[in-house]
Amino acid sequence: MSPLEFESKKQSVAGFAAWSNVPTMMTLYDYLPSQNAYKVRLLLNHLGLPYRTELISIFEGAGQTPEFLAVNPSGAVPALRLADGRVLAESNAILTYLAYGTRYLPSDAFGLAKVQQWMSFEQDYVLAIASLRHWTMTGKLARRPAALVQMRRAGGMKALEILDRELSSRPFICGQDYTIADMSLFAYVHRADEADLPLQEFSHVCAWIARVRSQPGFLDQQFPYAVDPHSSGELP
Amino acid sequence: MSPLEFESKKQSVAGFAAWSNVPTMMTLYDYLPSQNAYKVRLLLNHLGLPYRTELISIFEGAGQTPEFLAVNPSGAVPALRLADGRVLAESNAILTYLAYGTRYLPSDAFGLAKVQQWMSFEQDYVLAIASLRHWTMTGKLARRPAALVQMRRAGGMKALEILDRELSSRPFICGQDYTIADMSLFAYVHRADEADLPLQEFSHVCAWIARVRSQPGFLDQQFPYAVDPHSSGELP
Repeated sequence: MSPLEFESKKQSVAGFAAWSNVPTMMTLYDYLPSQNAYKVRLLLNHLGLPYRTELISIFEGAGQTPEFLAVNPSGAVPALRLADGRVLAESNAILTYLAYGTRYLPSDAFGLAKVQQWMSFEQDYVLAIASLRHWTMTGKLARRPAALVQMRRAGGMKALEILDRELSSRPFICGQDYTIADMSLFAYVHRADEADLPLQEFSHVCAWIARVRSQPGFLDQQFPYAVDPHSSGELP
Repeated sequence: MSPLEFESKKQSVAGFAAWSNVPTMMTLYDYLPSQNAYKVRLLLNHLGLPYRTELISIFEGAGQTPEFLAVNPSGAVPALRLADGRVLAESNAILTYLAYGTRYLPSDAFGLAKVQQWMSFEQDYVLAIASLRHWTMTGKLARRPAALVQMRRAGGMKALEILDRELSSRPFICGQDYTIADMSLFAYVHRADEADLPLQEFSHVCAWIARVRSQPGFLDQQFPYAVDPHSSGELP
């Protein structure tokens, strides 16, 4: 998608861009360069579920409109509107909703909680990779305090070290099965080189990335921040 | 508990302190001033479940021993060992495991995911309150970059503003029922004044705090960092 296409889709409805007008379908509120949103697109692809997309131009403040805050009080993407109108936010919560009752989420208490443990790890430790990647790809790195960049780099390395150790003894992060915890971790971890982290030095992580890529219904799709001409600005 | 008692409990077993020796009971790996650990103690109290405690002296590096890293690869407390030996980490994941099948966690896909949405919000936005409180109570605030402290303060205020708006229209964060999402949020939010945030200005949050406190089995328990003579150090 070119910046021009991005703009035209965005402007097709004030602040939002509808790719489909089927009203009885789920709606994913999306921002294409967001890997948090990619997690959801990946699972939807695995499950073969139809959905429509509304693009939220977050750097122009479209996440802070009263309409969108009614969908997600924090103003962040992704968010999901069900066909019945109920709304859900936070990528890992959306994964849980969509994967419930499928092969991608265990249904027993311990299995469910173990998946959640690694999604919490993702939210805490892998966030460092996400921040660094965002700042690196949008020219914001030099505008950030050096101490903060250093903290994030140390945090990103720690995340990769822990994952490499864990993935040395099992194919997927919770054991033998590919779950939404893998999808959640995969989103930013497999792009760690874009945060200038030495991803290739972590051989078990790299082997796991290849295993994720070989899953049926894998979605090989990335949108660079360059598709959004506003992404060099700060989030409101 | 006095600093002396804390030390004596900690030293009763090398690195760990056993409060009970019943081997068929759950073990909570705990650090008393941690409000993440308090979340778990609060739910255990609501449920009336017996458990033993092992204290992890995190500022002395007890979270980084090979023994504890086998329990939680990230080295953080709380963590839980089940009676059958399986281990679980991350406070919100432990809450999910313990609350599964009880009144504190809905069993349908949407209800479960909504609880997880607010626990993700907690982990993301309320983290700012947790950091500020830790730095304020242990004398570390002046050692942190000013830009980072400012970011955390803005983040903490945003968290309180969002919660106040949400809690203006319903008694608990997910609706009519008190869930583990409330317990998770409560842990750091109700101590926001210790992070020098103006908690009393958020009237809906304050009314919600009173509702949480009135729940059957509420655990009114706090341990200041002062119980740990090592808490002014940096985490390894």
